[in-house]
Amino acid sequence: MNHHHLNPTSPNSCPLTPLTFLERAATVYGDCTSIAYNNATFTWTETHLRCLRVASSLTGLGIGRRDVVSVLAYNVPALYELQFAVPMSGAVLNNLNTRLDARTIEIMLRHCESKILFVDVHLRVLAQEAVSRFPPGIRRPVVVVIRDGAHERFTESVSLVPQSDESHVNDAESDISTTYEDLVEKGDPNFQWVRPINEWDPITLNYTSGTTSSPKGVVHSHRAIFIMTLDSLMDWSVPKNPVYLWTLPMFHSNGWTFTWGMAAVGGTNVCLRKFNSDDIFSAVDRHKVTHMCGAPVVLNMIANSPNAKPLENPVHFLTGGAPPPSAVVLRTESLGFVISHGYGMTEVAGVVVSCAWKEKWNRLPVTERAGLKARQGVRTLALTEVNVLDPNSGLGVKHDGLTQGEIVLKGPSLMLGYLKDSHATKMCMKEDGWLYTGDVGVIHPDGYLEIKDRSKDVIITGGENVSSVEVESVLYSNPVVYEAAVVARQDEFWGETPCAFVSLMGKANSEDIIKFCRERLPHYMVPKTVVFMEELPKTATGKIKKFWLRDMAKNMSQSKERSRM
Amino acid sequence: MNHHHLNPTSPNSCPLTPLTFLERAATVYGDCTSIAYNNATFTWTETHLRCLRVASSLTGLGIGRRDVVSVLAYNVPALYELQFAVPMSGAVLNNLNTRLDARTIEIMLRHCESKILFVDVHLRVLAQEAVSRFPPGIRRPVVVVIRDGAHERFTESVSLVPQSDESHVNDAESDISTTYEDLVEKGDPNFQWVRPINEWDPITLNYTSGTTSSPKGVVHSHRAIFIMTLDSLMDWSVPKNPVYLWTLPMFHSNGWTFTWGMAAVGGTNVCLRKFNSDDIFSAVDRHKVTHMCGAPVVLNMIANSPNAKPLENPVHFLTGGAPPPSAVVLRTESLGFVISHGYGMTEVAGVVVSCAWKEKWNRLPVTERAGLKARQGVRTLALTEVNVLDPNSGLGVKHDGLTQGEIVLKGPSLMLGYLKDSHATKMCMKEDGWLYTGDVGVIHPDGYLEIKDRSKDVIITGGENVSSVEVESVLYSNPVVYEAAVVARQDEFWGETPCAFVSLMGKANSEDIIKFCRERLPHYMVPKTVVFMEELPKTATGKIKKFWLRDMAKNMSQSKERSRM
Repeated sequence: MNHHHLNPTSPNSCPLTPLTFLERAATVYGDCTSIAYNNATFTWTETHLRCLRVASSLTGLGIGRRDVVSVLAYNVPALYELQFAVPMSGAVLNNLNTRLDARTIEIMLRHCESKILFVDVHLRVLAQEAVSRFPPGIRRPVVVVIRDGAHERFTESVSLVPQSDESHVNDAESDISTTYEDLVEKGDPNFQWVRPINEWDPITLNYTSGTTSSPKGVVHSHRAIFIMTLDSLMDWSVPKNPVYLWTLPMFHSNGWTFTWGMAAVGGTNVCLRKFNSDDIFSAVDRHKVTHMCGAPVVLNMIANSPNAKPLENPVHFLTGGAPPPSAVVLRTESLGFVISHGYGMTEVAGVVVSCAWKEKWNRLPVTERAGLKARQGVRTLALTEVNVLDPNSGLGVKHDGLTQGEIVLKGPSLMLGYLKDSHATKMCMKEDGWLYTGDVGVIHPDGYLEIKDRSKDVIITGGENVSSVEVESVLYSNPVVYEAAVVARQDEFWGETPCAFVSLMGKANSEDIIKFCRERLPHYMVPKTVVFMEELPKTATGKIKKFWLRDMAKNMSQSKERSRM
Repeated sequence: MNHHHLNPTSPNSCPLTPLTFLERAATVYGDCTSIAYNNATFTWTETHLRCLRVASSLTGLGIGRRDVVSVLAYNVPALYELQFAVPMSGAVLNNLNTRLDARTIEIMLRHCESKILFVDVHLRVLAQEAVSRFPPGIRRPVVVVIRDGAHERFTESVSLVPQSDESHVNDAESDISTTYEDLVEKGDPNFQWVRPINEWDPITLNYTSGTTSSPKGVVHSHRAIFIMTLDSLMDWSVPKNPVYLWTLPMFHSNGWTFTWGMAAVGGTNVCLRKFNSDDIFSAVDRHKVTHMCGAPVVLNMIANSPNAKPLENPVHFLTGGAPPPSAVVLRTESLGFVISHGYGMTEVAGVVVSCAWKEKWNRLPVTERAGLKARQGVRTLALTEVNVLDPNSGLGVKHDGLTQGEIVLKGPSLMLGYLKDSHATKMCMKEDGWLYTGDVGVIHPDGYLEIKDRSKDVIITGGENVSSVEVESVLYSNPVVYEAAVVARQDEFWGETPCAFVSLMGKANSEDIIKFCRERLPHYMVPKTVVFMEELPKTATGKIKKFWLRDMAKNMSQSKERSRM
């Protein structure tokens, strides 16, 4: 077939972007509730216009294509709106993890040369501290505060991870002139939003870690996010007009793309700044929630809630990051939650492998069912391929459920790469066509994938990834520490917590070590346990035997620390 | 943001293609029924392997990238399998309309230089006639017959459009050595299927018309079909494991992409070679059908069936091509069908505008509801933009439901273009970034689009588009015809039928004219009505006043011809 004249033309090669979902939502779901937050609600018509106004105001402030605009906020309506408004101004959206410390935030803001930092009023002190750390001569981002009129229930709840810098904010003492609502008010609702020129243009920047001087900033394209958003909705069978409760932080991979996804299906975003299990049950009741996501720690919280009660209607709960423990699955399902389990990472924009459920499995005994549900599963529709490669041969392992290898991925939702770090990008996205996850898995005879060992250096605590290498580097900076190794310790509530094995060349106790780390690391990264040894066990070649320490941590009784969210 | 090192890399830029859905279906839905046909059923594991085998056999026959492989078949299992198997060999899939005549098929086969023609055993005479028309020296496609073992109910039904060449086939007289099942049997189930090199590589070729010497062959890319398939499933909210009844011919835009879509969601394809309303009701009952598509003529058939009975479970029916008449919507909805209405065309691969339904409309009186449902609606999620342009200013019309203009589209599912016809491609897909549909519409104040006038030259009869220009050119080739103009006449059953206005320079009656056309056109294109006039009405500049003839045809009583399918 002679098709050489058949090349892309302007009508068929318009860049894919999730931003087109918003205008459509205003047409199709205009009267429907887009956001519910405390006693405030918005419609899709309103949300569309507010996003256009903010985007136009950003343009007015000189923000344009490829500028980075950061947001440090809990799950409040403004954070939701900014997922659209920032890229609609042409800029790249950088959601920041609210659990980070000022030093880390400073490093990230400097790394991406952020022009504007939107900050939740409750995190203003943290943001100001981060910005004040900028050395003279380095341009600081403009800080814009997000206030909300609704009366907060903030004081009733505590953060999932306690924040030292979350002191009460005195709204009166404000050295910042512009607020988020100012930008909404002054903006033009008829603004012609800035469409990407190319679908490979960046839309988001999400940091996966960053306590060292070279944080990893994952950049995604409009194309990847468009595809991932549709893929995630399909994979989880999200119907039109769902009611979605935001128990997953939007700063976690943009809420696994369900931020844009809710516009695609005309959903209601039920926003919560903070929550405990009572807040969840009452939001589910009040708003007739149908869908929610979260790390296993959220399921855990529900399962262990003293006030847990059977749901009136089923609530679909998608969890990921770590497999949900069987007991928790059983308990929450008995309450009426329908648990789905997926696998993803910031580098792939969301869930790309999921435990697609088979009807026939419902006839199996409960424990067997829970075991099947803990498997990560199969690729989603849009992921091109997933495989588990033998580290020696580089070939796919046998589908025997036993042979381990590294999980590798290829597909359209994979990141463009790490910002300003082509070395790290190349180490992860290799020329053989695969993205290397660092996770170790097997493939079962039925083709389902199961993770056997998380990337060796990662500890997952309360849904957050902690790089053991980063914690170790802080420990090594302590003059009394001779050797240090950090591994995961099982924790009933958090899933895992960092456990440090240390040998000393001076005097210190656990509290000293922990205090030292607290001053230098976000709280969730600080070891909860410190074990002193005369010398750390080593291999013949002098490497610390981490597997041995992992075993040791595994044999410790589970830590019993309990927190409310 | 300095992102210049962030370019597509091999892990994230694998070509989008719907072919990846099949292997996944075999993993996730392996035991589930993929195809049910008469008394035969297949599972997704079987369908996956059969497609691989056929693809490998095609490769063995020398078929490779960009070769065209044609299929002329009713909705039998092989036709479904070939939607995957042909492109899995790297070739371009060309589904042919079974309602065409040998001459038209010959023109198409020659136009695309088809290498292989798969033909349903019931259409073998037609295919052989088409191929025998090839002049000496022009390479003919290899004909491969699709037989099926199951006992046919063929004789019980008649075709939607009667076929002159559909004489009974004598299976014994076979000058063709290879059958479809031979290719299945000899094929290699471990075949490594041929992935597209680029997502813009062609996957399908569908002819929109073709009685003239330059048929329009619409070419679509793997990328467009991947996106359209997901978009259509999302738009129609197709759940996992639907049971889909094939009342829409797969040769109509590959069944509006639901061919590949059923693999994406693990659906059951209930195949019917031919059907009447009894067949529909009995298939719905027997297979517990949940979804089906078809032109309004199929809805019509259901509504008027003397054996119509209320459904046990709701069946979702997606219709398009022309708005469904209110009475038919009301009647079929009262039986339990849930009617959705969409707009698309071969050039855009499927439904790209659909009448997204609003909950609140359910509270309106029935006639008002039917009126709203007849509107074409809003763009689907993946379509980038739709607009109605004023022919003079070239700007979008007011959203007043009154101002008419031409409907234009842009989006990723638009065709690459017309094969070997860059002029026609440029006339349709213009440099201003829009695909011009030729259809006239308005936009209502709520943003919903409604077609007011189909492309002037198109008559839609029983779901098939007839180009009036093509019929006129045949009429003009008759030596006794002086002037001819063909317009649509309303028809209760077919929706529209071609109506010819003719002035003569010799002697002829209606039967003569119709007979002349029958010998030169597929039956569905032949005028059902011929009106003789002394002279055709003309404008001041000498153009035939077609609008006047359309009015005249509109005022004729509806034609009463009734057919079973």
